[in-house]
Formats: sequence, structure tokens, C-alpha cells
Amino acid sequence: MIITIIGIGLIGGSLALSLKQNNYASWVLGVDQNPVHGERAVELGIVDEVVSFDEGIAKADVVIIAVPVNAIVQILPRVLDRVDRQIVIDVGSTKESIVNSVLRHAKRGRFVATHPMAGTEYSGPEAAISDLFTGKCTVLVDKENSDEDALSEIQRLYQSLSMNIVYHQSHEHDIHTAYISHISHISSFALALTVLEKEKNEKRIFELAGGGFSSTVRLAKSSPDTWVPIFEQNRDYVLDVLDEHINTISQFRTLLIKKDFESFYKLIQQANQIRRIVK
Amino acid sequence: MIITIIGIGLIGGSLALSLKQNNYASWVLGVDQNPVHGERAVELGIVDEVVSFDEGIAKADVVIIAVPVNAIVQILPRVLDRVDRQIVIDVGSTKESIVNSVLRHAKRGRFVATHPMAGTEYSGPEAAISDLFTGKCTVLVDKENSDEDALSEIQRLYQSLSMNIVYHQSHEHDIHTAYISHISHISSFALALTVLEKEKNEKRIFELAGGGFSSTVRLAKSSPDTWVPIFEQNRDYVLDVLDEHINTISQFRTLLIKKDFESFYKLIQQANQIRRIVK
Repeated sequence: MIITIIGIGLIGGSLALSLKQNNYASWVLGVDQNPVHGERAVELGIVDEVVSFDEGIAKADVVIIAVPVNAIVQILPRVLDRVDRQIVIDVGSTKESIVNSVLRHAKRGRFVATHPMAGTEYSGPEAAISDLFTGKCTVLVDKENSDEDALSEIQRLYQSLSMNIVYHQSHEHDIHTAYISHISHISSFALALTVLEKEKNEKRIFELAGGGFSSTVRLAKSSPDTWVPIFEQNRDYVLDVLDEHINTISQFRTLLIKKDFESFYKLIQQANQIRRIVK
Repeated sequence: MIITIIGIGLIGGSLALSLKQNNYASWVLGVDQNPVHGERAVELGIVDEVVSFDEGIAKADVVIIAVPVNAIVQILPRVLDRVDRQIVIDVGSTKESIVNSVLRHAKRGRFVATHPMAGTEYSGPEAAISDLFTGKCTVLVDKENSDEDALSEIQRLYQSLSMNIVYHQSHEHDIHTAYISHISHISSFALALTVLEKEKNEKRIFELAGGGFSSTVRLAKSSPDTWVPIFEQNRDYVLDVLDEHINTISQFRTLLIKKDFESFYKLIQQANQIRRIVK
């Protein structure tokens, strides 16, 4: 299969590497509006050549759109305008705005909306790694709106990466990712800001940052170019869960103020239940 | 050196394993009020034998107290009562209450208050691992109150583990760990509770929990037996930083409500500064 990656960053680049390595892709074309990213991607062996937007679509069997979600809603209709037999997927963290951007497009059937649930806090082609997806989950969204051949080809693509496929409706996907992924990022951004504000002595932070702190603020290194558009598109669901989160933290504060350590203990025991779910 | 570990859990057990492996310890005695932990520790090769409290102290060159911080303030004076030439250390996450519990003890000089900044979310002897400390930082507290020979022996002990040693006053240690370690745990407990509350369908959480969520809730698996006493002893400093944290998260909420994504972008850029400090 000839694959065209539009946006050769962490996710696009990692997909390119993995799909070449497992021989799903016979040839990978890269499209990136940043010529430096394009050059780097060729040097790093992520893509075989860099081509123009039109050429990338014309020559592809599968086009993968891996740009920030605000850019996906701009680019996706333009890609579908140029599509004939090709299959197009996006890999954005939100889904409702994206599927709505092409809801009545004549070529809607060639598009499969996907969200591989994997990532790191890094970005750009240098961040691409080949084993990012193995064993992780990918969500295929509103599958009834995709042509059958397109859907089954994309299932084959993700299966080739040893990913588990689940199916959601787009709004349902956006609610669940607000809960599980998006709120983690705000929590981590806020924690980093709190510590940077409280602890002006950076050497101290460096010295005292054990494994716990490092893993909790890991996501705070994530790029605003990726994340602000996600929060913009998923604002309402994120607000809902953010309120719940603030209430929960405030509950811990209230118990500390009251010195009610028995209830504090019970809250932690409840939180420990996450062990059953996340290994 | 003969080492006695009082409390053979994650930290005590890991110290035992590491100090045997690097030949700092010629023989390791274990003291644990839970006989099952003691037996398991012998089976796992963590300690060479399990002995009584009195025998453990009498036979030791160095006594390591590795029980929850509320138990340390109970046990430490009793250990020092029985000490002659031995050196005693604790490895608790708070320091002020602990050093105050023996401030005027006749044997105060034999005690070195320490906090190796390392851990995982697991507990008990099964959680012990031998490379937990390498390259991490350990804090020695109020060193002027320890005998010179005791201090230099404990420096040698931590150096044998390839740890970087820093020196704090006890109240200063407690402020900084509230900022950097203790608040991470509350944030993680709260995130786990929020998601468990919002997402009643546990299968969904399991499916959608990518690397981001898993690392942010990792600490939420931590034991309340370890952590409630820490929050109890470090309550005032934790409350201070918790207020700051709630304010910061609320700032994200306000910006979402106002759809002020430009300021949201700037906040994330500020949070990204944590990259300079935590690799």
C-alpha cells in the first residue's frame, strides 16, 4: 500500500515508521507545510519522499491526516474533494467537529474517523517512534458512514499494528476522552504551574523530583499547538469533567482543614480502585 | 556492616536488597510486626533472618526505620532508648514531626534523619526492587544534630547506592516535599476519583486509558496506610500548596468558560517550562 502522511509529527511519523516496518506500507509519502519537518523526516527514514498536497493525495492508497484537530477540520474537506478510490483517515483526539466537517461531503464514504489512543509528551518528526501503538487501543468512529471496503482496509491497517479496535459514536468518543485523556492533561499542566509558582528555586525542584512528581507532570510538557485546539473543540465536555475534578480536589482540602483523616483514608481507598482498571 | 530493617515494605525492602547486592551490608536482619511480611521477606531473599525488635537493635551497626511516618514517631524514641554505638536512620517522607520526637533524647546524636526521594505506587515486601535508588536524590535533615561518625557513615551508605545527597533543615524539607511530592499524590487521587465517578463503565476506562492517563493516575494506587500519616503530619504546608493548585485549575476553567484560548495557550506554554527541570 502507498501511504501518504499529512503532518509528519509524533503520531503521523510514528504511524509511518510502524507501517513501513511491518510492511503494510510499501512506500510512504510525506506532506508537511513545514519544509524543515519534511527534510528531517526523510533524513530520519520516516518517509520515503516529500511531495505536494495534491501529489500526495493523487498517488496514495491511504491518506493519513495527522495535524492538530483545528487543522484537520480545514484540511479534511479539501482532501476529500481530491479523492477518488483513495481511503482517508484522521487521527485526531476529538471526533465530533471532525466528522461534522464532512457530514454531507459527496466522498464521505471514503473517510474513516479514527483515534489511536497513544502518544508521548513530545512533538515533531524527532518524536516519532516505531512501537508507539503496539497493544494500545484505537477508536473507529461513526463507522456506518464509511464505505465497507474503506472500513475493512483501515481495520486491517490498525490490526497490522497489533492495536485493539473499539467502535464509538463521535459524541460518545468525545465525552469519554474528555474524562480519560483531556482532563489528565489539564491536571498535569496545573500541577506544573503550581510547583513552578510555589517553588521559585528550580534547583530544588530538580533535586526533589522523585519518580512520582515526574510521572504526574509528564503530560505538562505537551505542546499547546496540539492541545489548545483539542480543548477548544471539546470545551463543553471538558468543562463538565473539570468541575467534577475541582470538586474532588476541594473535598481533599475540606477534609484536611477539618483534620478528618478517617474520611481522607476512605477517599484514598476509593481512588485505589483505579488499580482494577489501569495496571 | 550488619543492617536491621524495621518495616520490610517497599522502601525498607528495596534498601535491604540494594545494600546486600552492593556489599555494603554483610548481613540483614528484618523486624516486622506482620509475621507474614517477615516470612515473605526471607523467602524473597530480602532479609537474612527475621528477629525481634530488641535483638534487631542489639545486633545492628545501622538500624533503618522504614514504617509509615506516624509509626516512626512512636518507634524512633524506643529505638534510641536501646542504642549504644549503633546508628539509626529513618526514611520517612516528612521530617519535622520525626526530628521533634527525639529532639532532647540523650542519644539524639546517633540518629540521622533521611528521606531517599524514590518510590513506586506499590507496597509490601513484594514491592521491593533493587535498583529503586540509583541516581536519585536523598535528603539528610538537620545534620548538625547528628554525631559526626554517624553522619559520615550514612553518607557512605547512600553513596554506595549511587544517590545524590542534599542537606535541608527539617521544616524546609517539609515545605518542599509538600510542593513537589505530596501534592502530586492528591492530584492523582483526585483524578482517579473523578474518572471513576464520571465513567461508570469501567471497560471504557480500560479501553481508552492511553499512556497519558496511566502515568497521571499511577500515584493514585498508593497505599493510604503510607500516605494518610504523611498528609496528617504535613497538613499545613500541603493545605497551602493545595489552595494554589485549586486556583490554577480554576484558572483553566475560567478561560474555557470565557473561550479565551489565547490565554489558555500562554498558560500551557508556561507549564511547558517544567521541561527545563524534569527530563
